[in-house]
Amino acid sequence: MSLDHAATKPHERLAQALSADLSAVNDMIAARMASENAPRIPEVTAHLIGAGGKRLRPMLTLAAANLCGYAGPYHVHLATTVEFIHTATLLHDDVVDESDKRRGKPTANLLWDNSSSVLVGDYLFARSFQLMTETGNMDVLRILSNAAATIAEGEVLQLTAARNIATTEDTYLKVVRGKTAALFSAATEVGGVIADAPVDQVKALFDYGDALGIAFQIVDDLLDWQGGAGIGKNVGDDFREGKLTMPVIRAIAAGDTNERVFWTRTLEKRVQEDGDLAQAQDILARHGTLDSTKETAIAWAARAKSALDPIPDHEIKGMLVDLADYVVERLV
Amino acid sequence: MSLDHAATKPHERLAQALSADLSAVNDMIAARMASENAPRIPEVTAHLIGAGGKRLRPMLTLAAANLCGYAGPYHVHLATTVEFIHTATLLHDDVVDESDKRRGKPTANLLWDNSSSVLVGDYLFARSFQLMTETGNMDVLRILSNAAATIAEGEVLQLTAARNIATTEDTYLKVVRGKTAALFSAATEVGGVIADAPVDQVKALFDYGDALGIAFQIVDDLLDWQGGAGIGKNVGDDFREGKLTMPVIRAIAAGDTNERVFWTRTLEKRVQEDGDLAQAQDILARHGTLDSTKETAIAWAARAKSALDPIPDHEIKGMLVDLADYVVERLV
Repeated sequence: MSLDHAATKPHERLAQALSADLSAVNDMIAARMASENAPRIPEVTAHLIGAGGKRLRPMLTLAAANLCGYAGPYHVHLATTVEFIHTATLLHDDVVDESDKRRGKPTANLLWDNSSSVLVGDYLFARSFQLMTETGNMDVLRILSNAAATIAEGEVLQLTAARNIATTEDTYLKVVRGKTAALFSAATEVGGVIADAPVDQVKALFDYGDALGIAFQIVDDLLDWQGGAGIGKNVGDDFREGKLTMPVIRAIAAGDTNERVFWTRTLEKRVQEDGDLAQAQDILARHGTLDSTKETAIAWAARAKSALDPIPDHEIKGMLVDLADYVVERLV
Repeated sequence: MSLDHAATKPHERLAQALSADLSAVNDMIAARMASENAPRIPEVTAHLIGAGGKRLRPMLTLAAANLCGYAGPYHVHLATTVEFIHTATLLHDDVVDESDKRRGKPTANLLWDNSSSVLVGDYLFARSFQLMTETGNMDVLRILSNAAATIAEGEVLQLTAARNIATTEDTYLKVVRGKTAALFSAATEVGGVIADAPVDQVKALFDYGDALGIAFQIVDDLLDWQGGAGIGKNVGDDFREGKLTMPVIRAIAAGDTNERVFWTRTLEKRVQEDGDLAQAQDILARHGTLDSTKETAIAWAARAKSALDPIPDHEIKGMLVDLADYVVERLV
C-alpha cells in the first residue's frame, strides 16, 4: 500500500482517516437493513448497497462530525441514515427512469421487479427515520426530514420538466438542489449539528455540501453526454429519456430554428433515430456548452472550497477541499 | 339533519363530535401537501385525499387524544401525519398492484403515471416526518417511524407470499398487522402518548387499534371475495392477482387434491379462465371459509372493544366501541 498521498484519491484518504467510523457505519447498515419477516428486503438492499458505492454521503457526515470534534456515538446513526435515504432514492429512481443499469450492474427493478424496488425503498426510508430518532436530537430530525421532502420535490420537478424544451437553467438548478445537493448539504450539516458546532461552522458545512452536491450533479449530467471511465451507465441515457440537463438547456437557448425542430422531435416527442445522439453531441460541441458547463461545475467546486473558510485548519478539512477538486477532475 | 344517533354510523358520529379538530386536520392536509416547486404533487395528492376517504385513521388519533383529555395543538399534526403515511402507502400500493380503481375512481398511476405515484408518495412520507418532528415528542417519533417500517415490511412480505399456496394463516396475520393494523395501532397510541396518558391507557389504545385494524383488513379481504355495497373496487381482484387471504388459506388447508390442482393453476401459475372466480367462490362456500373468516373478524372486533376496558367511560369511548362493531357490520 502506497503511503504517497498524491497517489490516492481524496475520498480514499477520507475513508482511510475515518476507517473506524466507516466500519461502524457498515456494521450498522448490515444490522439495520435486516428484516426477520421479509428476507427480500436485505437481498435487494445488499445488491445496491454492496454494489461498489463509495459511501460518499455518509463519509461527509462522519467527516463533518470529526472536523467539529464530536466524540459521541450518533454520527454513525446519522451517516447510516444518510446512506439509507440515498439507497431508497436510488431504488425509486430506477423505477421512475426504467433503468436497467446502475454502477455497471443490473438494477434491482430488473433483477427482482418494480414492486420490490418501491417497497424496499419505503422500508429503508422508514429505517432511516428510526435511526435518526435514536439520536434524540430534534435539530437533526428537522434537517433530515426537510431534506427528504426536498429530494422528493426535486424528483417530481424533474419528472414534470422532462421532455419540456422550455425548461430553464433556473428550473434545472432547483432539480439538482433537490435530487442531489439537498442530501449532501444535510449530510454535512447534521455532522456539525450533532457535534454542537458553532452556528457559523454549521452554516459553512451546509454551504460546502450544497455547492459540492451541485458540482457533483452537473458533472454527472455532463458525463452522461461525453462518457468517461467507469461511469457505470450508458452514454446518452438522459437524451433518450428526454431529460434536459445544463449542456442541452444552454444549447437550446443559443440554437437556431433548425436545432429547435431537432430538439422538439428528439426530446419532446422522443422520436429518435440512429445518429441523433451523435448529432445532439455535435450541436452541444458547436455551441461550446459542454465546455461552459464544465466551467460552471468548476465554479461550484470553488464555492464549496471557499465555503469551508470559517472552519479552522484540520487534516479532514484539507481532504474535503481536495474532494471538491476531485469531483470535477472526473471530467478530465 | 337527523338528531337520532341510531340513524348515523359510528364514524359519522365521531366526525361530528371531533368536527373542529377534523376541520383543522383538513386545513393542515391542504397546507402541507402544497409544493411551490412541483405543482404535480398537490394535484396527485388531492385526487387521492379528496377521493371520499373517511379520514378513519386520523380520526382515531383525534379520538384517542380527546379521550385522554389532551388540550394541546399537536394531535392535529399527528392526525395529518397518519393520513399522509396512509396516502403515501395507497399511492405505492396501486403501483405495486397495478390497480386501476380505488374507492370507485381511477387510480393516480392510471391518471398520471407510476413515476408520479412513487415520487408523490415519497414526498408525503417526508412531509409526514416533518409534521411529527414539529411535535417535539420523541416517543411519537419512535412509534410512527416504527410503524412506517412495519408497514413496508408487511407489504414486502405480502409481495413474496403472493402466488404461494403454502402461505400460512400466521404469515397472513403478519401481513395484515403490517399493511393495516400497524398504522391503526400507531394512530391510537400516539393520541394517548401526546396526551401524556397513563401507561395502561396507552396500552389499551394500542391494543384497540391493533385489533380494529386486523378486523378491518380481514373484512376488506372478505369483501374482495363476496362483494358488498360501495366497496369501490372489483370483486375477485385478490384472486386475479394471486393474493392469498384468510378464506383461501383456510380452504386450501381443508381442500382435496383436485382443489389443490385448481389453486396451483389459478393462484400460483395464474392461469385463469372464465368461470374460475365462480368456481373459487364455490370452493370457499363448500368449506364454509367465508363464514369462518367472518367469525374471526367478529372475534377481533370483540377484542378491540374489550381492549378499551381500562379507559374510563366517555362519549368518545362509546363511539370507538360502536366503530369496532361497525367495521364488521359491513359484512351484513
